[in-house]
Amino acid sequence: MKNDPSQPSSPGRRGFLKAGGVAAAGFAATGGAQAALTRPHTDDPLAQIEPFYGAHQAGVVTPQQSHTYVAAFDLKTEQRDDVIALLRDWTRAAAQMTQGKPAGMLDTPDDKTAVDSADTLGVGPAALTVTFGFGPGLFATQDGKDRYGLASKRPAALVDLPRFNGEQLVAEKTGGDLFIQACANDPQVAFHAVRQLARMGYGAIQMRWGQAGFLSGQKGQTPRNLMGFKDGTNNPSTRSAAQMNQFVWANGDDAAWMHGGTYTVVRRIRITLEHWDRMELGFQEQVFGRHKYSGAPIGRKNEFDALDLGAQDKDGNPVVAENAHVRLSNQATNDGAQILRRSYSYNDGTNFYVERWPPWRQETEYDAGLIFIAHQSDPRTGFIPINARLAKFDMMNQFTTHIGSAIFAVPPGVREGSFVGAGLFDA
Amino acid sequence: MKNDPSQPSSPGRRGFLKAGGVAAAGFAATGGAQAALTRPHTDDPLAQIEPFYGAHQAGVVTPQQSHTYVAAFDLKTEQRDDVIALLRDWTRAAAQMTQGKPAGMLDTPDDKTAVDSADTLGVGPAALTVTFGFGPGLFATQDGKDRYGLASKRPAALVDLPRFNGEQLVAEKTGGDLFIQACANDPQVAFHAVRQLARMGYGAIQMRWGQAGFLSGQKGQTPRNLMGFKDGTNNPSTRSAAQMNQFVWANGDDAAWMHGGTYTVVRRIRITLEHWDRMELGFQEQVFGRHKYSGAPIGRKNEFDALDLGAQDKDGNPVVAENAHVRLSNQATNDGAQILRRSYSYNDGTNFYVERWPPWRQETEYDAGLIFIAHQSDPRTGFIPINARLAKFDMMNQFTTHIGSAIFAVPPGVREGSFVGAGLFDA
Repeated sequence: MKNDPSQPSSPGRRGFLKAGGVAAAGFAATGGAQAALTRPHTDDPLAQIEPFYGAHQAGVVTPQQSHTYVAAFDLKTEQRDDVIALLRDWTRAAAQMTQGKPAGMLDTPDDKTAVDSADTLGVGPAALTVTFGFGPGLFATQDGKDRYGLASKRPAALVDLPRFNGEQLVAEKTGGDLFIQACANDPQVAFHAVRQLARMGYGAIQMRWGQAGFLSGQKGQTPRNLMGFKDGTNNPSTRSAAQMNQFVWANGDDAAWMHGGTYTVVRRIRITLEHWDRMELGFQEQVFGRHKYSGAPIGRKNEFDALDLGAQDKDGNPVVAENAHVRLSNQATNDGAQILRRSYSYNDGTNFYVERWPPWRQETEYDAGLIFIAHQSDPRTGFIPINARLAKFDMMNQFTTHIGSAIFAVPPGVREGSFVGAGLFDA
Repeated sequence: MKNDPSQPSSPGRRGFLKAGGVAAAGFAATGGAQAALTRPHTDDPLAQIEPFYGAHQAGVVTPQQSHTYVAAFDLKTEQRDDVIALLRDWTRAAAQMTQGKPAGMLDTPDDKTAVDSADTLGVGPAALTVTFGFGPGLFATQDGKDRYGLASKRPAALVDLPRFNGEQLVAEKTGGDLFIQACANDPQVAFHAVRQLARMGYGAIQMRWGQAGFLSGQKGQTPRNLMGFKDGTNNPSTRSAAQMNQFVWANGDDAAWMHGGTYTVVRRIRITLEHWDRMELGFQEQVFGRHKYSGAPIGRKNEFDALDLGAQDKDGNPVVAENAHVRLSNQATNDGAQILRRSYSYNDGTNFYVERWPPWRQETEYDAGLIFIAHQSDPRTGFIPINARLAKFDMMNQFTTHIGSAIFAVPPGVREGSFVGAGLFDA
């Protein structure tokens, strides 16, 4: 099934390339007569561009785009130089794609494999961000050998996550040596980015898991998750440098190369929507500790009204239940700890499930829920203690099951001409 | 875990309802101070409204929205009246939701289950269309009993699909007695619609399969599928009433109640993207019979240049290969038959697969591809012969696997005050 040399070459495509300058001008400029329709203006979410280079990687405090594709890879190569070469290639290609350009030149000869799958040709940059992370496996010692000579560089904060109460992790949705988070205002642009990067690693890496996610709603409003509640109201403010430095960015105390990076936890949390939908409205609100429609704390009126965990009703009972999600996850319950949640919903259709509540039906139900993504300066004081408490006591647990889990060190941003994680390998 | 009567009631939510009039004004009007930001204007894809009532159901010739959720259900009830009651409820709720309103009133008491999951509160109508269809099971005779007294009403055109060469159908992605296709410019709005309708049928129906899909790209351009090629260039024109009457709308010859309806085939087609991405560009173009970047037929310059299946190169070989997709699917190869394709890509993350090409790796790969959706006046002259030919000869088959399949009679549009499929039950 090789290319048949008896076939004529491709005057259409070649002429198109010659006339349109695809390779030079990039995806956003293609389309000939349609160019005027797609000219960038700030209101068009497909025309927006996020900068790739900077002190921090994009995709952490970046205003959340409407779609994501996250993926983790196992390293198969045993060569440190292969890893460095891959990170250099990834950096170059990611920088290109965030500008709305293909991962590489499009002027491929007919008898060669194209560098780019071209499925987002003409769509636009769509505010694409590509964020890279390193899992514990990059620093591992295997069969007595320091795999990539990086064992001594592993940050103390990049711990292996402990087992949490009730989690039902499956290996094929868990872990990974390398991590890519692509976010964009278009599902295909996000997936396209990961797909091109994955291709560059054929042979050196193997996909471990990949997951698409989305976020609905109007810009400027707190989005609602699939349970119908606003999610992210109590996030630390990305506009506050002080809060970001305290809660999100690593200060490099335990690993200088991580200064300005962050630690990212990803959890695939299935939500039993059929079960949730059968619950009384008042009960749903007690589970969250918030009113459903307004997003206000129980007993208050507006979404951003202060949460008063000490408030009691006339009988002396707490207004916000002892095991409400909002109480258990709040910084006041967690020694002031905060994490920056930047989660997406996921919807993988349906699967066969055995319900874990009466009458214990066995039937086809939604395979949907939350791709929980949290960034923090140190998971030992962030996600781990917070989630340990939630896993034990949160009323929400009867509707949620943690299926996948991973932790990554997300290095700081990239200087033009350098590559992501250069500080780890150079030092 | 019932609502605790010792807890205070919900002044925040009640006050919100009272002040904002959620139930009356609907989702689109909520948001208080943010209303000005979300005021409908035609450029905002979340503010667009598609009419629900009309001679035909919406979602067939409607300009394709960016997202879909399609689902099929098995009927569990044995009562004809239950089916009618469900269709009445579905019609009313779907009409509401397409206007950006919840499926039912939101002023639920705390101790009751809310009619609407509220996860799209504030998002907007997002051009939602909801399209209903009937599978062969609705007309079936089971254990010698005509299930719903409809056996004699089954249209001859609603055939059981034959087995096609190479298909690998799985039962849990195939078939169904009732069908809902929700399309919207937002993934959560599309899923929300199906989810509320599914809830209304608890007890009477059981979900058989559900599937989310998306479509990328700029409005006014032919979208590209995940293989990177434009998909839909050669569709019959939805602006031509003559073409729609000939190829899409049923004329009711074999079942008067279907006059103005259509027959819809849904196929879940997995695409082995890793394998495809390793193919030479020229070979990919021969598989499709089109140039990748421009979408032009092989040897031509522009997407809409005429396809000349008789063209030969200087050696007398066909310019468009004998087994190219574009040749085998073209009306000239199929006695003039055309179908209206309105497909979406899907992306369900990753799964473990055994490759069916050397070196037959066994590894985690993309679970992604195409939710092929085709509407036609008669599948016996439409999808069935076209796909029979493709299934045998199409070069593309080495990259595609049909996993799911279903066929439905989609009744004509609904008159206000009536319900979808009324003609079937009234007659």
